[in-house]
Amino acid sequence: PGKKVLIVYAHQEPKSFNGSLLKIAVEELTKQGCSVTVSDLYAMQFEPRATRNDIVGHLHNSKEFNYGMETWEAYKRGDLSQDLVEEQKKVQEADLLIFQFPLFWFSMPAILKGWMDRVLVQGFAYDLSKSYDCGLLQNKLSLFSFTTGGTKEMYSNGGIGGDIRYVLWPMQHGIMHFCGVKVLEPHICYAPEHVSEEKRKEMLTAWTQRLKTLWKEEPINCSPEWYFK
Amino acid sequence: PGKKVLIVYAHQEPKSFNGSLLKIAVEELTKQGCSVTVSDLYAMQFEPRATRNDIVGHLHNSKEFNYGMETWEAYKRGDLSQDLVEEQKKVQEADLLIFQFPLFWFSMPAILKGWMDRVLVQGFAYDLSKSYDCGLLQNKLSLFSFTTGGTKEMYSNGGIGGDIRYVLWPMQHGIMHFCGVKVLEPHICYAPEHVSEEKRKEMLTAWTQRLKTLWKEEPINCSPEWYFK
Repeated sequence: PGKKVLIVYAHQEPKSFNGSLLKIAVEELTKQGCSVTVSDLYAMQFEPRATRNDIVGHLHNSKEFNYGMETWEAYKRGDLSQDLVEEQKKVQEADLLIFQFPLFWFSMPAILKGWMDRVLVQGFAYDLSKSYDCGLLQNKLSLFSFTTGGTKEMYSNGGIGGDIRYVLWPMQHGIMHFCGVKVLEPHICYAPEHVSEEKRKEMLTAWTQRLKTLWKEEPINCSPEWYFK
Repeated sequence: PGKKVLIVYAHQEPKSFNGSLLKIAVEELTKQGCSVTVSDLYAMQFEPRATRNDIVGHLHNSKEFNYGMETWEAYKRGDLSQDLVEEQKKVQEADLLIFQFPLFWFSMPAILKGWMDRVLVQGFAYDLSKSYDCGLLQNKLSLFSFTTGGTKEMYSNGGIGGDIRYVLWPMQHGIMHFCGVKVLEPHICYAPEHVSEEKRKEMLTAWTQRLKTLWKEEPINCSPEWYFK
C-alpha cells in the first residue's frame, strides 16, 4: 500500500501470455494501493544500442570513445540523453522492479538487455567500490518474471538445458545484486505455448495469487550457493 | 588455409582494445589464407530489436504477433528482412564464428544479443527436435573472445563475480551448442583498462599466438560439467 512499482516489459504483443502477465500485475498491484509504472519497451521503441547518442553535447575524450567512461561523466554533468534520464527517474522512485519478458536464448531479449546496458550507468547504479551489497540502488527489490519455450523438465538439473537457476545468475546476481538491489524468487511460466488453455489459466491465477502476498516475501540469498549448490 | 571465418564484432571504437583484438584476428587469419568476413555491428547500425519489421509482406497470424512463429514461417517462405538474410548467408558459409565484444553486465552487449535473437531463427539454426548435437549449424566452430571490466580474481571460484564459466553457459551452451555449433575455449582479456601498457601488449601478443594454432584445437566438452564442475 503506497509502494511504487516499475514494470519493465519486453513483449511485442499485448494479447500474448506475457501481455496477460503484465496486465495481471498492473491490476493486482494497483488494487493493493501501489503506484505502478510500466516501461513498455517495444511500444516505446526503446533504443538498445549503447552509442555516442546517449551523451548530450561534448565528449570527455572525443579521440577514443569509451561508453562506460562517457556515460559516467555525462551522468555526473547531467548530460545523459532524455530517454535514459526518464528511465533512471522511474528506477530511483521504485520500491520494486519487475522484469516481464519471454526468455530468448537463455537470457533477456536484446531490447531489455539494452535497457540494462544503458540505464544502469556508473554513478547512478554503482560506483567505484560501491557494488554488490554496497551498490547504489539499495532498499529496492527486483523480480524476474518470464516465460520459456522449453519445458520444466528441460530446465532441471540433469535436463539438457541445465538448471534454470544457471540462466538467472547473470541477470539476478550480475546485474541486480551488483547494483545493490535485493532479489525475490523469480516467477517462471514454462512453455505456455505448449500447454492446454486450462493449464495457462492456472498459471495466470498462480501469478495473481503470488502477487497478493508479495510484500511479505523475503529476498533470496543471492550467492553462488543459491544458483549452483 | 581456405577456411572461412565470420567475426561478429560489437565495439563502437576502432581504437579500443577490442578493436585491436579484431584487427589482429583479421590480419593473422588472412595471413593464414583464411577468408575473413567481419560484421561490425555498431558500424552497420545493426538493429537489435525483434519486431514485425523482420518479416517482409504479410504475417502468418496478424491477429496476435508471435515473433518466433512469424520468423520461422518467413524463413520458410524466403520472406525475412534483407539484413537477416545477409547475416544468415555469412553464418552458413563460415567454418568458424568469432564473437568479439566487451562483457556488459555478465553477458553480451545488447547489439550482439540482438544479432543472436534475430539471425538464429527456427528453420535456419535449429528446428523441431533439431537442437544441441542435432542443431542445424553443425560442422562449424565458435569462439567467444571478450574483455572484462573486472579482474581475473573477481571472476574466479570464490570471487565476488563467481567463476567466469558461469557467464559462458548461456552464450556457449544456450546459443551455440543449441544450434549444433562446436565451441572452442573462450579467449578472455581481463580488465585491459586497468593494467599497464606492457601487460596490454602481452595480451595482444597472446591472441596472435593462439590464432596461429587455432585450427589444431579441440572443441570443449560443452556440458554442465565444464561450467559448474
